[in-house]
Amino acid sequence: MPQLDSVISSQQFDKPMIDTVFQVAGEMELEAPPDLLIHKIMAALFYEPSTRTRLSFEIAMAKLGGDIVGTENAREFSSAAKGESLEDTIRTINQYGVDIIVLRYNKEGGAERAQRFSDAPVINAGDGPGQHPTQALLDLYTIQKRFGTVDGLNIALVGDLTNGRTVRSLSYFLAKHYKVGRVYLVSPSQTRMRQDIKDYFNRYDLPWEETDRLDDILPELDVLYQTRVQKERFADEPKVYEEVMTAGERLNITAETSAGMKKESIIMHPLPRVAEISYVVDKDPRAIYFEQAQNGLFIRMALLKLLLVS
Amino acid sequence: MPQLDSVISSQQFDKPMIDTVFQVAGEMELEAPPDLLIHKIMAALFYEPSTRTRLSFEIAMAKLGGDIVGTENAREFSSAAKGESLEDTIRTINQYGVDIIVLRYNKEGGAERAQRFSDAPVINAGDGPGQHPTQALLDLYTIQKRFGTVDGLNIALVGDLTNGRTVRSLSYFLAKHYKVGRVYLVSPSQTRMRQDIKDYFNRYDLPWEETDRLDDILPELDVLYQTRVQKERFADEPKVYEEVMTAGERLNITAETSAGMKKESIIMHPLPRVAEISYVVDKDPRAIYFEQAQNGLFIRMALLKLLLVS
Amino acid sequence: MPQLDSVISSQQFDKPMIDTVFQVAGEMELEAPPDLLIHKIMAALFYEPSTRTRLSFEIAMAKLGGDIVGTENAREFSSAAKGESLEDTIRTINQYGVDIIVLRYNKEGGAERAQRFSDAPVINAGDGPGQHPTQALLDLYTIQKRFGTVDGLNIALVGDLTNGRTVRSLSYFLAKHYKVGRVYLVSPSQTRMRQDIKDYFNRYDLPWEETDRLDDILPELDVLYQTRVQKERFADEPKVYEEVMTAGERLNITAETSAGMKKESIIMHPLPRVAEISYVVDKDPRAIYFEQAQNGLFIRMALLKLLLVS
Repeated sequence: MPQLDSVISSQQFDKPMIDTVFQVAGEMELEAPPDLLIHKIMAALFYEPSTRTRLSFEIAMAKLGGDIVGTENAREFSSAAKGESLEDTIRTINQYGVDIIVLRYNKEGGAERAQRFSDAPVINAGDGPGQHPTQALLDLYTIQKRFGTVDGLNIALVGDLTNGRTVRSLSYFLAKHYKVGRVYLVSPSQTRMRQDIKDYFNRYDLPWEETDRLDDILPELDVLYQTRVQKERFADEPKVYEEVMTAGERLNITAETSAGMKKESIIMHPLPRVAEISYVVDKDPRAIYFEQAQNGLFIRMALLKLLLVS
Repeated sequence: MPQLDSVISSQQFDKPMIDTVFQVAGEMELEAPPDLLIHKIMAALFYEPSTRTRLSFEIAMAKLGGDIVGTENAREFSSAAKGESLEDTIRTINQYGVDIIVLRYNKEGGAERAQRFSDAPVINAGDGPGQHPTQALLDLYTIQKRFGTVDGLNIALVGDLTNGRTVRSLSYFLAKHYKVGRVYLVSPSQTRMRQDIKDYFNRYDLPWEETDRLDDILPELDVLYQTRVQKERFADEPKVYEEVMTAGERLNITAETSAGMKKESIIMHPLPRVAEISYVVDKDPRAIYFEQAQNGLFIRMALLKLLLVS
Repeated sequence: MPQLDSVISSQQFDKPMIDTVFQVAGEMELEAPPDLLIHKIMAALFYEPSTRTRLSFEIAMAKLGGDIVGTENAREFSSAAKGESLEDTIRTINQYGVDIIVLRYNKEGGAERAQRFSDAPVINAGDGPGQHPTQALLDLYTIQKRFGTVDGLNIALVGDLTNGRTVRSLSYFLAKHYKVGRVYLVSPSQTRMRQDIKDYFNRYDLPWEETDRLDDILPELDVLYQTRVQKERFADEPKVYEEVMTAGERLNITAETSAGMKKESIIMHPLPRVAEISYVVDKDPRAIYFEQAQNGLFIRMALLKLLLVS
């Protein structure tokens, strides 16, 4: 079985490792061994708020019999508030003999910095505008489970593509390991995908196009991946945020949107959602964002097993 | 045994169910089976601060061998801060396969909304000015344990009766399932019991009267149920809060108050208390508010058993 | 084995008890019995932020098989925010049947007040500018492990000696139970050690001297114990804080400082550190502050065993 040491970025995963993670996730879906991680301790260090990611990691650990310690808001309530560096915190947590560290950090590169000072494996649970590789893995797992493959699919990434770390992480996977049909980058002009990802697409000959007109491409899509404009990324630019929200309204998914889509297509969202998918769409069988959330549990259980059980 | 699906409101409980809860609570008091809830996971979602309720639920779960995940302040630290609806949060938590959700919400109706979107049982741990049914159950259990019955007792509800959800929830129980002697509603004029509860009393022919003079009725009382004026409910009206506090001073329980009470009467309080019961009263054997808190543990263990073990 | 009921202050420990704690800590270092504290519940009540102390207590409990409930920031998120007294909180937590309370409080004397109202043992995890006895124990354990003894050593306490509770607690131990060579009190003039500790030194004939010139004494030192100026203690006096920081710069440990020290000396710090030890010093084998942090885990496991297993 390929060896996994830490989960820092999407780029670290090769195809055999992705397939291994998906295989173990499938096993977890069938039956979770309740004592697999007994006497193992996870430290969940969250420097930014998160229900979904934190709870799914903690539940994954609990379902496998492990213990959890941690902090909901490390930035405010911990030594960080006293000026301690991330590196010192990680070294100290290591001295306490934890078996794994799950880290959400408020700045890009946090997980990588942490890993350099950690004997215990580190899982990047999101580092500011950087990456969120476990989200990308669960997204891919969701697509593959539904279609049996990722190859040949037409995929639209919609919303704030500048700051959305989930679509960035997913893009790396799509380009490097699959032969997708075409990727559509759909966003208001203010929040286009950054050039580095476009270069990455080109490097791997992935056909892509940029548009702000979702309606035109709906009939082509197998996967519509909608995202939230993250208000917290515009903290210093409330005016830009308003502009993006106004421009983005045309990209919201409504009953009308889904009416234009293929019968066997799917609508995904990393959640939490605000107004970008109408609640009425939830009943559409093509709306699989809650199943997608559940896949996150299986993926995280799989990663915990791969990192903690040799 | 009667079937319990969720704990949302006092009104849902019929007499056989109340008696079942009290019987199981009595068993828990004698001996808590330490592995009863092994491999069960509780999600404790608190949108408002609470030590007492949260810790007692978590300790109840721990004593029965279950696991706990959750958040101390969901409003600030979770997806709610990003604008996610309660419904979406509940659906997601369900996808993660938790076995039970304990919810304290900051708006009336939260638990009911949550239950509609939850496969896992939901326990209402207080929903703003709405209900707090587990508190009402433990209050009733405390009275019944001490007197052997609730029927025929004279009970004074004292303090902020407008906003106090514990006295509201308790009132439903008293009216519907018992033949109490008389209920005294004792409050400053600014915080009288709302009309809906008075109507409920009338509907069930429960004798009640309203007064702002506690001293006059002291010799009649079997149960004096004191409550705190909840400052947080007057956040927008600091002047009204001051008035209520001044008017309420005469209702504070001191050594003098208890001197006027019957030997076999009891003084209750849902806690936390501030100035409304003097510390000197704590030594009075009629002061049973700490025993009342402990009964909360037994009631919550009983509810967890009834909801999670078929 | 000597009996331990609670851990409130350094003064409560006599020499046989210190030796017992260190012996059990040594056993924990070799092997932690994973089921020693099964079905025991620890309540971790933190009224002030802390990563290090809270996580090390929680990890200590988890490694011994116990359960943990608690709050990261009791002051803001709990009944304390509603005006409840510490005493009432402690009484209530006791009613819930927890087996041990770990308390960090924001005012001196908190742990002692808590103990008076607690049937469960209380561990003082720091009470404002008061004491932090488990830190003092781990500091002493670190020195003794390295040198085999504390007697005869020259020890410099450096930094904010007025407010630093770790150096205060350590000072009690050094004076009462050991024959140290000499203690140097090294600080800016604004943050000198308070008179009570100097009197304590004199009472036990401990040779000490006060200086603000670290360089002069470096060659004499076996132990250099550096501390952080705690910004949070100067919340009302930002100007004094600035003065102290400027005056304290000369006391920061750099590569140059350590170059002046003996080969077999050690550099300690209770962590978190900010600028008072340069990161470059971390690679020096004499820098043992991360090992010191780890010793905290062993000491806390030992205390949990001594308090919970008769």
